[in-house]
Amino acid sequence: MSKKNKQFVEKVTAMEDDFAQWYTDVVKQAELVDYGPVRGTMIIKPYGFAIWENVRDELDRQFKETGHSNVSFPLFIPESMLQKEKDHIEGFAPEVAWVTHGGEEELAERICVRPTSEVLFAEYYSKNIHSYRDLPMLYNQWSNVVRWEKTTRPFLRSLEFHWQEGHTCHATGDEAEQETRQMLDVYTDVCENYLAIPVIKGRKTESEKFAGAEYTLTIEALMHDGRALQSGTSHYFGTGFAEAFDIRYLDENGDQTPVHQTSWGMSTRILGGLIMVHGDNRGLVIPPRIAPIQAMIVPIAQHKEGVLDHAYHLRDELKDLVRVDIDASDKMPGWKFNEYEMKGVPVRIELGPKDIEKDQVVLARRDTGEKEFVAMSDVKTRLPELLEEVQQNLYDQAVAHRAEKTSVAKTYDAFKQTLEEKGGFIKAMWCGDEACEEQIKQDTGATSRCIPFEQDKVADTCVCCGKEAKDMVYWARAY
Amino acid sequence: MSKKNKQFVEKVTAMEDDFAQWYTDVVKQAELVDYGPVRGTMIIKPYGFAIWENVRDELDRQFKETGHSNVSFPLFIPESMLQKEKDHIEGFAPEVAWVTHGGEEELAERICVRPTSEVLFAEYYSKNIHSYRDLPMLYNQWSNVVRWEKTTRPFLRSLEFHWQEGHTCHATGDEAEQETRQMLDVYTDVCENYLAIPVIKGRKTESEKFAGAEYTLTIEALMHDGRALQSGTSHYFGTGFAEAFDIRYLDENGDQTPVHQTSWGMSTRILGGLIMVHGDNRGLVIPPRIAPIQAMIVPIAQHKEGVLDHAYHLRDELKDLVRVDIDASDKMPGWKFNEYEMKGVPVRIELGPKDIEKDQVVLARRDTGEKEFVAMSDVKTRLPELLEEVQQNLYDQAVAHRAEKTSVAKTYDAFKQTLEEKGGFIKAMWCGDEACEEQIKQDTGATSRCIPFEQDKVADTCVCCGKEAKDMVYWARAY
Repeated sequence: MSKKNKQFVEKVTAMEDDFAQWYTDVVKQAELVDYGPVRGTMIIKPYGFAIWENVRDELDRQFKETGHSNVSFPLFIPESMLQKEKDHIEGFAPEVAWVTHGGEEELAERICVRPTSEVLFAEYYSKNIHSYRDLPMLYNQWSNVVRWEKTTRPFLRSLEFHWQEGHTCHATGDEAEQETRQMLDVYTDVCENYLAIPVIKGRKTESEKFAGAEYTLTIEALMHDGRALQSGTSHYFGTGFAEAFDIRYLDENGDQTPVHQTSWGMSTRILGGLIMVHGDNRGLVIPPRIAPIQAMIVPIAQHKEGVLDHAYHLRDELKDLVRVDIDASDKMPGWKFNEYEMKGVPVRIELGPKDIEKDQVVLARRDTGEKEFVAMSDVKTRLPELLEEVQQNLYDQAVAHRAEKTSVAKTYDAFKQTLEEKGGFIKAMWCGDEACEEQIKQDTGATSRCIPFEQDKVADTCVCCGKEAKDMVYWARAY
Repeated sequence: MSKKNKQFVEKVTAMEDDFAQWYTDVVKQAELVDYGPVRGTMIIKPYGFAIWENVRDELDRQFKETGHSNVSFPLFIPESMLQKEKDHIEGFAPEVAWVTHGGEEELAERICVRPTSEVLFAEYYSKNIHSYRDLPMLYNQWSNVVRWEKTTRPFLRSLEFHWQEGHTCHATGDEAEQETRQMLDVYTDVCENYLAIPVIKGRKTESEKFAGAEYTLTIEALMHDGRALQSGTSHYFGTGFAEAFDIRYLDENGDQTPVHQTSWGMSTRILGGLIMVHGDNRGLVIPPRIAPIQAMIVPIAQHKEGVLDHAYHLRDELKDLVRVDIDASDKMPGWKFNEYEMKGVPVRIELGPKDIEKDQVVLARRDTGEKEFVAMSDVKTRLPELLEEVQQNLYDQAVAHRAEKTSVAKTYDAFKQTLEEKGGFIKAMWCGDEACEEQIKQDTGATSRCIPFEQDKVADTCVCCGKEAKDMVYWARAY
């Protein structure tokens, strides 16, 4: 038995025993990621990258549909340029990588490897926007960024990660705010309808917003262990960068007016969310709409006459309908079952001599483990249906899990006790004072995840200080 | 008149007067690129990036069709790892960017921003390849790389550029050599059949091969000014990296055997080739198969009743057949004509009140300037045909230009004279001695572009030293 086969027989750590180890095991054994040579960097392997390509392609399609153009801005930012917007540099300076030498030559000015690209876009806009006719300017780029994090984990927090960053300029604040909201809706759609991850939409508090933003909108998801994951953010900048970088346009009255800006990003981090929302103790579970392989054909007793012929024929019949593959290697069927369960392939198709005799196949769902026998002539209609059922079930399960792990706390004692015993989201009122937010963080480790758009006034007073409440906030310990 | 409109009325420098300035003007006025804040870096603007996306998507399709998987490896390489393969580090060390600080902390070991990723893949393969069952391993990544170049030009030579780099491992040298050749064929197909750029296929000489390779295959194209452009390379490594990084597999006899490797790359540089092969004094000319906009509808007298309705109706009729757009802005038609000529849109569709009366449209070709009147009912069949004719004509023109600029030189005097007077490719014999290659470079500025697969023994003796000739070589001054 080669090492490669062996690993699929190994079990992952049970998530109830050690969730962090379970995560690491799944990431490794489902062949998503390996570690790069520099601490905290990752290699995304073919299977992991194929999932990312599907998420990326759907996002990209929606960006283009909403009028955005892809561009490519440089990796490098001169130190002096990064410092132009004060809040921004304060937020990012502690975690950037600095290039000091090019070839043999020491550089006159240090260069930063982009942690995000607001200043690069701002500098470009200041030179390229002249009149109201140039607006809106709706750009996006797919890029790699670097943040010198102390503690790293594959997908969730890595020194370098992949993402898209949208950067837009608008004539009015209204338009820019609509854009900020629209892109949050795009993220919500991709999370809920493709990744099958339900999210809470809302606004970040002042202390949790993006460095340099007027406000930050966010979508927050709940992981299987009851921790939250920020899954996509969309920032409204007002005219902050426009003032710092002098981005003005000649408006219809002939006045030089600063533009209103947004930026928004979603990253490979969401693959961590995918794992922690749908995975189980047999490994990964991938929603069909973003699964690289939606159905894997595993021939049974494939040495017997006709089995492989039938299996390949079935593959050819299905390949224009679904993303189907066949494993005709000489591994035992049981090992193959384990391998594709570990990899979270939504449906396994079994086909052996008995099935051929009965002119049927077996469809085995990854999510529920249920098997059904389907007449060969019905597979082309049943399989796509079944994939939609799996997609819906994964979403429903995640919604149910979140509901179960969402609590209301009206007193600080209840807050602390619920968080300790149950984790998950806690809906509780907040006075709006940063001191209370900080207090809660210190006492419990929970942070404000968002002030949800859908408010639910669960009490009249702040859960921390007891003064008059302003907003209902979702709180949780978070990744 | 806003600045944005104005620029399309400006002319580009005539290529006969100053080819370098013509290139810079086209790049700028066709809105392909802007300069980044760090010297030598570039911003690829929406129109430039849309062309690159089309090239990239076709390459990606062919990579997947030939069994390759996309992956993502890190941006950073520790200095010690880069040094493992001696020839490789010697080739790249003088031009890498060094990261020395992460956040506030000075790093114990310098980190290099990847100039190419052979060592990262080699390190991974050494840990992940165990048995012959793991082979071949066929990886590709789309990435950005950094080379600290002294002299830079948009697309042609920039500090940071985008490319794909394929990295593969094989059980035998034969298989790896077939792969090396196969990927050169993919590059040839994309260059000739999509970019309409004819190429010479061949092998690089020892002095021109990739640092660390056993040999390098290349495709070489000829630009309008008679200089050559290396357009894609495919390297055979033999077991060099496998020995340096200990990449071995258990073969069918139970022996630990080093793998045979390849790597191959094509970059945004090819967009420079696109400009310099097809462009003319009115700007860019883009082959239809990779044009972001294949046909632009320009309404004439659009304020007149019915014109815009007809134009939008036509757009809707055509949009599933070709990449069509409409410019209904309030600019004058003449300005629009200039703008889309500058941007190299293959076909312009004119539609005015007289055309509507006659139930026709005007199709104007960018490549030849010819116009034809087509009955409205025939546009859906005629336009796709016409686009294919434009595609073919651009290729034929480029082949004809290359033939005209390709000379044979049997004596060194003829070589020098031809290069001085005419430029272009010179076919001349070579003894195989690096001293002659170096002499030619010193005397004329021409380098060996390749030893073509299709040999043509134009003489018996080396054009430089007069000794017995080994190979016919294509020589040229090159970008």
